[in-house]
Amino acid sequence: MLKICNACRQKIFCQQLKRNLHQTKKVLCSEVEIHHNKKRAPNSFSWRTHSCGELSAAQVGESVMLCGWIQHKRYNFMLTVRDSYGVTQVVLPKEEKESLSTTDTVDEIHLESVVMITGKVQLRPEGLTNPKMATGDIEVAASEIKVLNPSKEKLPIHINDFQQAKESLRMQYRYLDLRSNRMQHNLRLRSEIIMKMREFLCNQHGFVDVETPSLFRRTPGGAKEFLVPTHQPGKFYTLPQSPQQFKQLLMVGGLDRYFQIARCYRDEGSRADRQPEFTQVDIEMSFTSKEDLYAMIEQLLEYSWPRDKPKLETPFPRMSYSQAMDEYGSDKPDTRFDWKIIDVTTALKGCGPSMFDSEKDEFTIRAVNCKGALEHLSSNDFSKIQQEAKKHFTAGILVIQCKDEHTWKSPIVKHLPETSRLEVGRLAGASGGDVLLVAAGGRSSVTKVLGQLRLVCADMLESKGVPVRDPDVYRFLWVEDFPLFLPSEDGADGDLESSHHPFTAPVPQHVDLMYTDPLKVQGQHYDLVLNGSEIGGGSIRIHNAELQEYVLQNILKEDSSCLRHLLDALRSGCPPHGGIALGLDRLISILCGEPSIRDVIAFPKTIEGNDLMSGAPSSVEDVDLARYHVRIDSPKESDVSEEL
Amino acid sequence: MLKICNACRQKIFCQQLKRNLHQTKKVLCSEVEIHHNKKRAPNSFSWRTHSCGELSAAQVGESVMLCGWIQHKRYNFMLTVRDSYGVTQVVLPKEEKESLSTTDTVDEIHLESVVMITGKVQLRPEGLTNPKMATGDIEVAASEIKVLNPSKEKLPIHINDFQQAKESLRMQYRYLDLRSNRMQHNLRLRSEIIMKMREFLCNQHGFVDVETPSLFRRTPGGAKEFLVPTHQPGKFYTLPQSPQQFKQLLMVGGLDRYFQIARCYRDEGSRADRQPEFTQVDIEMSFTSKEDLYAMIEQLLEYSWPRDKPKLETPFPRMSYSQAMDEYGSDKPDTRFDWKIIDVTTALKGCGPSMFDSEKDEFTIRAVNCKGALEHLSSNDFSKIQQEAKKHFTAGILVIQCKDEHTWKSPIVKHLPETSRLEVGRLAGASGGDVLLVAAGGRSSVTKVLGQLRLVCADMLESKGVPVRDPDVYRFLWVEDFPLFLPSEDGADGDLESSHHPFTAPVPQHVDLMYTDPLKVQGQHYDLVLNGSEIGGGSIRIHNAELQEYVLQNILKEDSSCLRHLLDALRSGCPPHGGIALGLDRLISILCGEPSIRDVIAFPKTIEGNDLMSGAPSSVEDVDLARYHVRIDSPKESDVSEEL
Repeated sequence: MLKICNACRQKIFCQQLKRNLHQTKKVLCSEVEIHHNKKRAPNSFSWRTHSCGELSAAQVGESVMLCGWIQHKRYNFMLTVRDSYGVTQVVLPKEEKESLSTTDTVDEIHLESVVMITGKVQLRPEGLTNPKMATGDIEVAASEIKVLNPSKEKLPIHINDFQQAKESLRMQYRYLDLRSNRMQHNLRLRSEIIMKMREFLCNQHGFVDVETPSLFRRTPGGAKEFLVPTHQPGKFYTLPQSPQQFKQLLMVGGLDRYFQIARCYRDEGSRADRQPEFTQVDIEMSFTSKEDLYAMIEQLLEYSWPRDKPKLETPFPRMSYSQAMDEYGSDKPDTRFDWKIIDVTTALKGCGPSMFDSEKDEFTIRAVNCKGALEHLSSNDFSKIQQEAKKHFTAGILVIQCKDEHTWKSPIVKHLPETSRLEVGRLAGASGGDVLLVAAGGRSSVTKVLGQLRLVCADMLESKGVPVRDPDVYRFLWVEDFPLFLPSEDGADGDLESSHHPFTAPVPQHVDLMYTDPLKVQGQHYDLVLNGSEIGGGSIRIHNAELQEYVLQNILKEDSSCLRHLLDALRSGCPPHGGIALGLDRLISILCGEPSIRDVIAFPKTIEGNDLMSGAPSSVEDVDLARYHVRIDSPKESDVSEEL
Repeated sequence: MLKICNACRQKIFCQQLKRNLHQTKKVLCSEVEIHHNKKRAPNSFSWRTHSCGELSAAQVGESVMLCGWIQHKRYNFMLTVRDSYGVTQVVLPKEEKESLSTTDTVDEIHLESVVMITGKVQLRPEGLTNPKMATGDIEVAASEIKVLNPSKEKLPIHINDFQQAKESLRMQYRYLDLRSNRMQHNLRLRSEIIMKMREFLCNQHGFVDVETPSLFRRTPGGAKEFLVPTHQPGKFYTLPQSPQQFKQLLMVGGLDRYFQIARCYRDEGSRADRQPEFTQVDIEMSFTSKEDLYAMIEQLLEYSWPRDKPKLETPFPRMSYSQAMDEYGSDKPDTRFDWKIIDVTTALKGCGPSMFDSEKDEFTIRAVNCKGALEHLSSNDFSKIQQEAKKHFTAGILVIQCKDEHTWKSPIVKHLPETSRLEVGRLAGASGGDVLLVAAGGRSSVTKVLGQLRLVCADMLESKGVPVRDPDVYRFLWVEDFPLFLPSEDGADGDLESSHHPFTAPVPQHVDLMYTDPLKVQGQHYDLVLNGSEIGGGSIRIHNAELQEYVLQNILKEDSSCLRHLLDALRSGCPPHGGIALGLDRLISILCGEPSIRDVIAFPKTIEGNDLMSGAPSSVEDVDLARYHVRIDSPKESDVSEEL
């Protein structure tokens, strides 16, 4: 039964404001019998008898009620009505026209107005069926069209143009953008995959979904943690970057299989395709091993993988960090295509040209063979490649165009001894039509720049319609054997920092080295890479209090006082444990074929962290600040009073 | 296969710190064959072959591996080992004693140390079985005990004393408290109920789980919103009190059945049994009605209700706000027991005593009959009742002790005409052994104080072991027909505030009154009450932009500029919609029979908002504050540098 009568509400309302009176004519109260609880999803607990996506020849003759948005109007007796599930054609039978209170005004109803249609399902006339449309065989002969809520005439984005609309416009009017098939698909797929993951973890494997606090305290090196002032003068909560400490404390507390779809916060200022808040599938287990965790994640992804995607092959391949850096110049190699980095030092070192001349131990010469790229790249592209190279590698690189076996085009080829040229060609498997990128210098910088250019060239070719990576391939890869510590980037010489976080355990056979040569220690950390993006990372944790304290104080020189509770916990019967976190936003965006995670988040923020729809962040009155004992300390006090 | 060798790690470790050497003897590396992927929950992906809760006579003779905590030691050849699933007895066969590297040192292993037991399952000797214990028929004859991680000797809480421990101690050492059966049960039940709710909403009824932002912008009247400073000088995010705006915008966006287990934030300073962050089951639907939403919530709770609880009776009873206030003096009546408020004005008004004398229209005399309370209440209790009354009601109340039909004990009974006394007795159904509480004055204050005392007396009796409310009864109740607006509490005379929130729609037949007499308007709001606690609330929302703007500007006098995006959205084809939010923490705490929501939250904060375990909130260095352009502006600057 309709409990709301929009008619009354609007009519009375219009009497007040003396507006829209012509609308109210169309909005007369009527009662419609519906047996809610007999109906199944998505129509249960709703006025509608059917969604706009489900009617077919099977329902011909049935009385139905549809609710949705007016997508198109033709003449003034035909509409298409859209809801989240599809589109249905509605006709107002010509001969009954006069008898319908509404037909004479269909042309007055703006597109995207919300209507309720009551009528009968009928077959479309001969030759007017639409096989491309799920409901293309039928139409609904309306007996009543009720305007539940009119839309204004001009909307900033037209429903059909969402794909074309500027992203800033899409974000400002997100509530319109969400009506697009694209966003409907992305958000519904996201919800389904999360649900499947929960079934696997909770129902099949006994994991416990535990909610951990998001108002926490500063952690060591927590420079990227948002602050939340409190009523206690000078005291602040922070929004955690991950539930790392809590998940470990849950293990100490005997909740030995924990998971959470966890909201995390990281204040990275403006970084492309990052969000100040993001979601991770957070998992921790006691009495487990790396092998167990690999198997668990592989089965989790198999179980929740969309049915319309190619089946996953498990176990996922594995690669050591050093191999990844050597062959791909990246710790998240895109293994969908070859073009590996090749060592050509033996062929070129000291063969003549000065760029190949050096006595440094670290000195190396590497090449990447962009197979068959030559015919697709213009001289303009080559200079773009050089510019890109300069960004990462001061020395610059050498681009060799292999016309054929014998003719190579490049500034220095004429200075190359033929034997060296042939040897490079052999090592790189070069043949006519290839493009060789060669860099010489320190090993890490050389591999990094070539790894970068490898991707740049692949993107270039694909932008020209030349397929390099199969869009239907999902290539997972475990990257492991990371160093536990790295030289600190912003610290003093000799300072170390964790390559992941200070709770990662060393591999057992390297525990000696912790006390002698920590830079040589390998950690029990692992990253999960999908199509060249890092979508997850985890580790076996340190469960020994003394070792953890040694890492914090002696190696990282951190003040461990704010981790006192964690160290106490490790001394109180902490089981060996490990875990992993998957970056849900990235995983879903890859599955949806979206370049940006913003397209799989309902209400994302810009790179600058602004919500263009609501205008967050915004100014706050001084009285509110005073309640938290803070004052604005800003270069431009003037901003403060301004509203965004 | 064990990939970690704790032995190696610890031994090497000990060589370094020259400590715990005696431990390492017990911790020699050994490989244990386990076929992980064949195992089911809770043993999949884990070293253990079985949990400590599942072994029975059926496994006698099997080789098993258990991992867990040492709960008890007897002599030096018997242990009980505990994990999250139960307890198992472990024996070290005497005759093999010498051959075991460990037995000689069992007495050195502290309780709560984490061990790995390998051995064979055997029946307990005649007469030594324990029928009270799930694994009471068997014991494990250990061939090896490996100490995975020793616990320090004295823990601040002993596992068996958790129930007795002070709450502050339990919160400081939460990771120990979580090992208690009580917390294990509460958190696991919470996880299971959430999972069932998800199955019902996602899998059975096509709801979409959408994550909405928790970094948002100030909302009108958002005095209780935490602030989050940003890198933009003078600009702040706020942590939303609920996803209210987002859920409505999702309806505009065509996601017509939304739900989220949503983290919400409310800064209420110190309030008993509130948390600065809490969780609600947040639901919104388009094209729906109050009746639909009631049915949906009733079926949702039926579906997710624990099997070991009495089956729910649906539909839930309903009560109007005015009836609730009249009969129970509360908008969340505890209907598990009677003791209703009775109007005795006709019997007592002007019958003699001055307290019953007044010419005010609002003047009324009401009574509550605490059936059979007399024999259980001491004179001390009666004065407690009076003190409690004074808190809420300056006039004080009259306590009548009904010895029998004819003898009533109370200061003013002698001044009561017999006819009045008999009439009161008749109206209140009073008989010997009852206690009558009578209050006279303004209607709302009279009903409020009697509603309060009704609960106080019930608690008093139950504290003396006299059952008033059945502990196994779960009494749900819909409370409806609330006024849409109330006189503003802190505003000027004549100012109005929303009794719930400004987005609640009026009942259709009252839309007129919005413009003439808003205080008379009933809203389409409904509360769900369970055993006298409000566990949910929702409403049909306003979908008409002009009406929404009128409410904000003309009635509530709010600055609607910060809701511009919402008003635009209502003009862009917003479907009629409504929703509800259930307070998950409260619901679970009632199901667990816990007085406080802190006992169903893994890491709760104190009433003052402190995390006693980690010491949040804490001080922050000025350099970090400077990044957010804020300065501490505090009465006691001294606090700032202090750590909690």
